[in-house]
Amino acid sequence: MHRAVAELVSAQEDTLTLPVVAARAGVHPTTLYRRWGSVAELLADVATSRFSGDVVVPDTGSLRADLERWAASVATDVADPEVLALMRAAIGAGEVGACACRGDREEQLAAMLERERVRSGRAPTVERAVDVLLGPIYFRAVLTDRPGTPEWARGLVTLLLPE
Amino acid sequence: MHRAVAELVSAQEDTLTLPVVAARAGVHPTTLYRRWGSVAELLADVATSRFSGDVVVPDTGSLRADLERWAASVATDVADPEVLALMRAAIGAGEVGACACRGDREEQLAAMLERERVRSGRAPTVERAVDVLLGPIYFRAVLTDRPGTPEWARGLVTLLLPE
Repeated sequence: MHRAVAELVSAQEDTLTLPVVAARAGVHPTTLYRRWGSVAELLADVATSRFSGDVVVPDTGSLRADLERWAASVATDVADPEVLALMRAAIGAGEVGACACRGDREEQLAAMLERERVRSGRAPTVERAVDVLLGPIYFRAVLTDRPGTPEWARGLVTLLLPE
Repeated sequence: MHRAVAELVSAQEDTLTLPVVAARAGVHPTTLYRRWGSVAELLADVATSRFSGDVVVPDTGSLRADLERWAASVATDVADPEVLALMRAAIGAGEVGACACRGDREEQLAAMLERERVRSGRAPTVERAVDVLLGPIYFRAVLTDRPGTPEWARGLVTLLLPE
């Protein structure tokens, strides 16, 4: 089912409905209605699983190096045209689908920051890290036609940890 | 036509098609197909006009004060549920609709920064200003269920202009 949604979304079929997904996946529409209720819920489900656990949390011993690697990975991931098509479709389905596009990335940031707090006794807040790292990375990917490069994403870390 | 789209979008009707918009606006679908060709193009058109010229560019004599006012206005605007519904629908329509949600906000930032360059000989780049101001503001509005407050948006300016 997830593959059927991904294929339809990246083919830019303009009206994604449960019967269309069912036809692509070769199942009866009733099966989909019973499990998801609406395309919005199905898209949110696909986005949640796509954006959770997809990026490995680095552990280099240095917060700066961890964040640089992680930001570059997230930027690379969201610049992929299929991933981008899925994100835009999920956002178009409404708030639940839009929130699903963050997956577990805030938790990943929190884990790196908490490790630093244990190590050195201080670290930026998760809120600030989300603002300066995820904010620009998602903005460029979703709202422009030129997603950020990994090098650019790495450079965002100096906003959080001035050199 | 723009009002018909806005109403349908904020009512969260799940399949926005040109015939549906035509029925709401009381015109023949052919008229819409002739002018816009697709719902994606219509949504991009509505978003472009909605996000251009909607925020006044402040001119207080201080770049910091200008940016703080402007960031607070943009954050307030995108936190509006109807504006948010329009943005998510336009993003869901694809790249053209998504880009339209930036409207003329990058040009507005460029105008404030250029004024400062003339005044003091130095100013941050537009690119950096987009990353640290528009990035987090749009991220919180579009991708979370808690859009940023005006106070929070004002605070983002210290990322660009450390105190």
